[in-house]
Amino acid sequence: MTERRADGSGLIPATGLRTFATRVFTGLGVPVEDAAIVADSLVEADLRGVSSHGVLRIPSYVKRILDGGTSPLTRIDVVRDHSAAVLLDANAGLGQVAGVRAMGFAIERASIHGIAIAGVRNSGHFGAAAYYSMRAAREDMIGLVFSNASAGLAPWGARKAMLGNNPWSIAIPADSEVMVVLDLANSVAARGKIRMAAVKGEAIPAGWAADKDGKPTTDAAAALAGLILPMAEHKGSGISIIVDLLTGGLMGGAILDDVGSIDRSARPQGVAHFFAAIDVAAFQDVAAFKKRVDEYCRRVHEAPRAEGTDRIYMPGELEAITSAQRAATGVPVEAAVLDSLRTVANQLGIVFDLTSSGAG
Amino acid sequence: MTERRADGSGLIPATGLRTFATRVFTGLGVPVEDAAIVADSLVEADLRGVSSHGVLRIPSYVKRILDGGTSPLTRIDVVRDHSAAVLLDANAGLGQVAGVRAMGFAIERASIHGIAIAGVRNSGHFGAAAYYSMRAAREDMIGLVFSNASAGLAPWGARKAMLGNNPWSIAIPADSEVMVVLDLANSVAARGKIRMAAVKGEAIPAGWAADKDGKPTTDAAAALAGLILPMAEHKGSGISIIVDLLTGGLMGGAILDDVGSIDRSARPQGVAHFFAAIDVAAFQDVAAFKKRVDEYCRRVHEAPRAEGTDRIYMPGELEAITSAQRAATGVPVEAAVLDSLRTVANQLGIVFDLTSSGAG
Repeated sequence: MTERRADGSGLIPATGLRTFATRVFTGLGVPVEDAAIVADSLVEADLRGVSSHGVLRIPSYVKRILDGGTSPLTRIDVVRDHSAAVLLDANAGLGQVAGVRAMGFAIERASIHGIAIAGVRNSGHFGAAAYYSMRAAREDMIGLVFSNASAGLAPWGARKAMLGNNPWSIAIPADSEVMVVLDLANSVAARGKIRMAAVKGEAIPAGWAADKDGKPTTDAAAALAGLILPMAEHKGSGISIIVDLLTGGLMGGAILDDVGSIDRSARPQGVAHFFAAIDVAAFQDVAAFKKRVDEYCRRVHEAPRAEGTDRIYMPGELEAITSAQRAATGVPVEAAVLDSLRTVANQLGIVFDLTSSGAG
Repeated sequence: MTERRADGSGLIPATGLRTFATRVFTGLGVPVEDAAIVADSLVEADLRGVSSHGVLRIPSYVKRILDGGTSPLTRIDVVRDHSAAVLLDANAGLGQVAGVRAMGFAIERASIHGIAIAGVRNSGHFGAAAYYSMRAAREDMIGLVFSNASAGLAPWGARKAMLGNNPWSIAIPADSEVMVVLDLANSVAARGKIRMAAVKGEAIPAGWAADKDGKPTTDAAAALAGLILPMAEHKGSGISIIVDLLTGGLMGGAILDDVGSIDRSARPQGVAHFFAAIDVAAFQDVAAFKKRVDEYCRRVHEAPRAEGTDRIYMPGELEAITSAQRAATGVPVEAAVLDSLRTVANQLGIVFDLTSSGAG
């Protein structure tokens, strides 16, 4: 059941969100299997506490399909296919559909060759990168995912946002511990946090952003008109450049600020992705490896803690804990997001119901 | 010719350094081909301005061989070999010899399968990670290198140095531009910079280090007794953990603070490495790709510059420029390093001559 709070936000069951999102996309002509993939990707992000990549994205995805920038039918062409390397063209379809298909190729070929890579070009926003790396880890493989994105950073030394905050994720299977999942972009702070500070009229910490002239600023509004800064100065910028070259560069897709903004809804984004899988079994006994990862987690958990730290988390552990909690209690969704989903439902003429199990 | 300065430092021709280093290692029973590899790796780092991984390492390498921690004969066992995945055991030999051999496997197999990976365990310090990724890029491949290292960082939230500042490098070939080379470790600042500040009695910037209780400090001496801090807080820590699992974890080598310090010279370090090569030709026409990388470099170079920036560099570009300059003018070597090399020469009974072309 959906629980509404005084401020209009709610705790929504994940199944209800998934069913609603699937209906939205099928209502736009997306095949039901594909709609379910997109819905699952968004809801998994909400479950894991990564709401920036969750159902709040639905309205922009819908607008892109309605305006023609994203094709509801994700026609995937296999451009190249040789041994452990596959290149796909997603023909301006849904990033999630292309991503699941490509990681499927990588997993299948890695089981034969020990490692494999599947690239995608002409794709779109694919949600959280961990959604794909974790698919490999569930198959006892190590998943590596890179994607480019529309411009938000300046290369180090420049003052123009011509480089995406290109995300990447690596997931490693464990036995009884939760899998180890790195999922990050290359800025000091997410743009969403700066937007939040601007709304509240608060200053942002030094080091997060620069103004439109490339000068450091703590003024959130000036930062929004300017640049978000890469983590670790030139290092974060360098990583974003390399990810761009591994994706748009290697896959023959768009690079730098040729990658289209998600908000230019009538145009294909031209995002490119890189998915690789490494079969643990090619290197050692899988059960032994997973127990070794457990042991690694245990040693990190038991490390002497810095003052003020109650618990030490492995990468991805906090997200897994959040996900388990939210699977039980429901996903908190902001009132503004609920309103935007209601608007989408009205626009598409579908029932605004977030309680459905999908069985009805 | 060697040029000595008033402070005792010198500008040494790279060939002289290479010849001297090769003689040092052959004098210790290292086969000449292997000695030449180690020498080349160290001198290339000096040429590129990465002197922390250059000839200043010779005395510690020598001591390790004399004390038995490093074997002069790098016997390499192929533990597993299937399709695009190879696992080697370096039997406590020289990291550089194992690294060149392993990247050779990765390149050879990638030319067949499109991508390949070669892991190494029971290895040692291998110098700069870029030395190996660049070997792949010279073969029109993308090289990816990860290594673990002895402990220097705390996992985020801990106050014990139980995690290596595990380096990684990715190199991408260009046409007329220099290849794009990312080569980094995961701390805010290198430990060497903190050591330098301590020697000079200077404070270090906030954010570089913590004391032995895990509290932030700007006191260089307290920092040396404590921890260097990961870049971007939990992100740098997370990357180091993932690199450890991709190397020591996946390859069945040492992990966390089981990786031995280079200074415990009688013990094998048990370092593990991960080398992968991606054949550009599996994804697109190689010449077209390299021209595309050139175009990428050009667009970054021509970006509007932030105030105070004279020139925007692609990753690895500054190192390539430095290398070209130093190949012409000689490599600057500190007086203390020259002294330590003279001591090594005396100890081994070889002529201390840095001017030789190796022909004599």
